Amino acid sequence: MMTVWRLRTGADKRIRSGHPWVFSNELSVSPKGHVPGAPVELQDAKGQFVARGYGNPHSLIAFRALTFNSQDAQPTGFDFLHQKVLGAWRVRKAAGFRGSFRLCFGESDYIPGLVLDYYLVDQNGKKAQVFVAQLVTAGMDTALQNAEEFFKGLVEKAKAQGFSDFTWEQTAVVIRNDVGIRKLEGMTVNEPKTIKDLEGFNLEHIEILLNAAGDDGVIKMSCDLKEGQKTGFFLDQTHNIYLAVNLFKSWAKQQNVKSVRVLDLCCYVGHWATQITRALKAQGLEVEVHLVDVSKTALAFAKENAEREGAKVVVHQMDVLEGLQNLPSQHYDIVIADPPAFIKAKKDIPTGKAAYIKMNTHAFRLGKKNGFVASCSCSGLLEEEEFRDAIRKASLRNYSEVRSVLRGGHAADHPTLMQFPEGFYLKMYVHYVM
Amino acid sequence: MMTVWRLRTGADKRIRSGHPWVFSNELSVSPKGHVPGAPVELQDAKGQFVARGYGNPHSLIAFRALTFNSQDAQPTGFDFLHQKVLGAWRVRKAAGFRGSFRLCFGESDYIPGLVLDYYLVDQNGKKAQVFVAQLVTAGMDTALQNAEEFFKGLVEKAKAQGFSDFTWEQTAVVIRNDVGIRKLEGMTVNEPKTIKDLEGFNLEHIEILLNAAGDDGVIKMSCDLKEGQKTGFFLDQTHNIYLAVNLFKSWAKQQNVKSVRVLDLCCYVGHWATQITRALKAQGLEVEVHLVDVSKTALAFAKENAEREGAKVVVHQMDVLEGLQNLPSQHYDIVIADPPAFIKAKKDIPTGKAAYIKMNTHAFRLGKKNGFVASCSCSGLLEEEEFRDAIRKASLRNYSEVRSVLRGGHAADHPTLMQFPEGFYLKMYVHYVM
Repeated sequence: MMTVWRLRTGADKRIRSGHPWVFSNELSVSPKGHVPGAPVELQDAKGQFVARGYGNPHSLIAFRALTFNSQDAQPTGFDFLHQKVLGAWRVRKAAGFRGSFRLCFGESDYIPGLVLDYYLVDQNGKKAQVFVAQLVTAGMDTALQNAEEFFKGLVEKAKAQGFSDFTWEQTAVVIRNDVGIRKLEGMTVNEPKTIKDLEGFNLEHIEILLNAAGDDGVIKMSCDLKEGQKTGFFLDQTHNIYLAVNLFKSWAKQQNVKSVRVLDLCCYVGHWATQITRALKAQGLEVEVHLVDVSKTALAFAKENAEREGAKVVVHQMDVLEGLQNLPSQHYDIVIADPPAFIKAKKDIPTGKAAYIKMNTHAFRLGKKNGFVASCSCSGLLEEEEFRDAIRKASLRNYSEVRSVLRGGHAADHPTLMQFPEGFYLKMYVHYVM
Repeated sequence: MMTVWRLRTGADKRIRSGHPWVFSNELSVSPKGHVPGAPVELQDAKGQFVARGYGNPHSLIAFRALTFNSQDAQPTGFDFLHQKVLGAWRVRKAAGFRGSFRLCFGESDYIPGLVLDYYLVDQNGKKAQVFVAQLVTAGMDTALQNAEEFFKGLVEKAKAQGFSDFTWEQTAVVIRNDVGIRKLEGMTVNEPKTIKDLEGFNLEHIEILLNAAGDDGVIKMSCDLKEGQKTGFFLDQTHNIYLAVNLFKSWAKQQNVKSVRVLDLCCYVGHWATQITRALKAQGLEVEVHLVDVSKTALAFAKENAEREGAKVVVHQMDVLEGLQNLPSQHYDIVIADPPAFIKAKKDIPTGKAAYIKMNTHAFRLGKKNGFVASCSCSGLLEEEEFRDAIRKASLRNYSEVRSVLRGGHAADHPTLMQFPEGFYLKMYVHYVM
């Protein structure tokens, strides 16, 4: 029998509004003694069914819902979870993702605790698929205890349903439980673990394929799916880059310029710079990209990627909050300010906002007139209004006339739920500088 | 000598942050007696230059800034204003607008009070340009008192600078001062006035050309530039339609469907339906569009437009808040919920939000599974969070699993300024329904 937890009287409002979380103080009994991650049926104070999911007595978020349908008897079972992941896959396919994409975005794909990226990889012309998973709750850790079996089953179903042509032999699976938030669930932070390897493929230096931003093809990006940041690549910006690149293409055509200088701040493996290069080279332009990052390893990947598309590359190894004053003012046609999250906890909000202001002040100083500054934030704790205010402060320090001409956000592979604002984190504003 | 107004001590914070407005109670002297709309130099309490613009003693917003640069001596003169409009034009060209677009978006283009739409028109294969202006402040009313001379000069400069090939003879100008907000400035609401007509063109039933959403061409839309709503057409949705149409194209290709049924609620002249039709017909699909509007005139235009692109059209003349219960559930692959602003004043917020919930509840009920609902709001007074909450309530009444897969907003022809949040009004979320 599944453990049953009852809510306190009146504590069902949030979860009945579709929000998947219940905090421990909203339960009528203490969750103590419950096996972390084991399934739970949630009832209201009167014993009426509310949801099923999993519970964790060691987390402030005691319960996370996997289903609000009382017919779903085993929501932590493989059958149910496979069906959920395949549903998420259908959304990505419908939205036109052809190569690599986020396949499951936790709560926002109705699978709390599961972050799953799908990579189409290429090594010397041979293709394969790689799943990289982060299991950030005890519930998902438990449900996917036998991860190999889970993914084997998923691969078979995905093939049968036409989502993917690859067999299990052509599949690698990496579990990236090297994420700090696991501690909030009382779990350990572990080393990355390849639970299914691919012979002849080096996951630590592999080419992933993803939608090109400026045309209908796919673009190659070298990265490290084993030890690189997050799951090895920041797939979340694919759509924003697509939006911005199409703007830059129109601009370059209308400006009638012959060469463009791009500054990619916190470039990581150079996704922005590489996509921009490809799109502008296709229009016959010379593209010079300046790659800025604190990591030598990231810069080496970024250089490889941008050069593959034909960029002239200049590398600047520096911390953007320390070294940018050394770069020349009004020197770059396009400036990309897309840092890692400056705000990771509520206490970081004031210093984090100051960091966004500082970095963007430099970005607007470095950008040429009649060019663009793209300002991004992936700090979920920074409200959009606050981010807009940071850009306002930064831009007004440098110019009298800038306009936001494009707003970005989440794309279909990082969906958002109106009932789950916690899942909304990605913001982008592109300014045209006069 | 230009009138000088001084701010009260400490009242310069907002305007120094780049915001263009000063309220009458922030001035150290009463603006009474000032000729409405006449130029004003604004100084801080110590007599230091802050801005130049125009003042109106009859408006709560006593002063609006046209420049923060003390070198700009005559900011209400034609030379200065032409330069500002041409700057705004450059932004639109850079962003890829080829046909019709909003040329000046008031405060957000640094020309408070001037809303100016540019239409490329076609009558029997003959092309021309039409400017439709709304002068919503006494300052702009005064500055453009001699509107014919203003536009004649603008057309000459635009031609000389390569923005447009048309001469003054190939130009029409309509002043649409039939807008209620003029009353807030103590001005009259006037009938639309054609101050420069075009022989052989019927502005009341004309084809405008604008960027096609699904390809690189231009699309024709018939509308009434003289008496139609606003300036005759809602140009603000061009970019959101582009974003959504590209999503629908990917979806249609992947779903492998043969025909698509579209419901366009508050369709006006059918911009959404017509663009969707063109894009999906180009993929070989049959498209059936259901056009819903309260206006018979609008529906006639919408039918003409959608049929021109090959849609099978069904017309429903009704008020969306009254009649939607008569349409069948889960019947439409794509539902567009893009009503006129339900909220026009702060007091309307609760009823307006309820109207968004009601309309979107129907939208989610009417949409098929594996289809889309696009929810829009152009009510600036409805905060984005509140709009998200309205969609949440609406969607949860109908389905257990919906995701927002696309967020829209303002495009480059309706730019936003971080320092002027009042200019941000347009919101769009597209949900995929499972």
